Amino acid sequence: MNTAVGLFAAVCTTVSYFPQLKKCWETGSAGDLSLKMFLILALGVATWIVYGFLQQDIVIIIANAVSLCLLLGILYFKLREHRKA
Amino acid sequence: MNTAVGLFAAVCTTVSYFPQLKKCWETGSAGDLSLKMFLILALGVATWIVYGFLQQDIVIIIANAVSLCLLLGILYFKLREHRKA
Repeated sequence: MNTAVGLFAAVCTTVSYFPQLKKCWETGSAGDLSLKMFLILALGVATWIVYGFLQQDIVIIIANAVSLCLLLGILYFKLREHRKA
Repeated sequence: MNTAVGLFAAVCTTVSYFPQLKKCWETGSAGDLSLKMFLILALGVATWIVYGFLQQDIVIIIANAVSLCLLLGILYFKLREHRKA
């Protein structure tokens, strides 16, 4: 039961970045996104992966690895815009 | 050691929403944010709080409670804009 709740939470917080990446992809725009938010978030998610390895918890590793990929995609759009400005 | 890494990760993923909320506050603009992202994220974070209670893990409860407050603030700006449009 606890594991199911944890898994559901992990899936939600992971897939949530997908619509944002899709939106950036479609509009090519990321002006209202906070660069600081996504940089700190990516750092945090990368640290969760380290934590997953330390705890040998495969769920934490996989969920955060997927999140990190999506976040790096969003950061790409944000940084591209940053350079244009 | 493991706990320190986990705490650092939790602090990062929690405080990351703060600059985004500050940015929305200052600009009053949230057009490039994905409503779906923040709705799913808030649902996920709320589920993490439930998980924290099930596991009786005070760190999970506090970190996610703070995140949820910040996310609700961001959602307020996003929904306000949604209604205007």
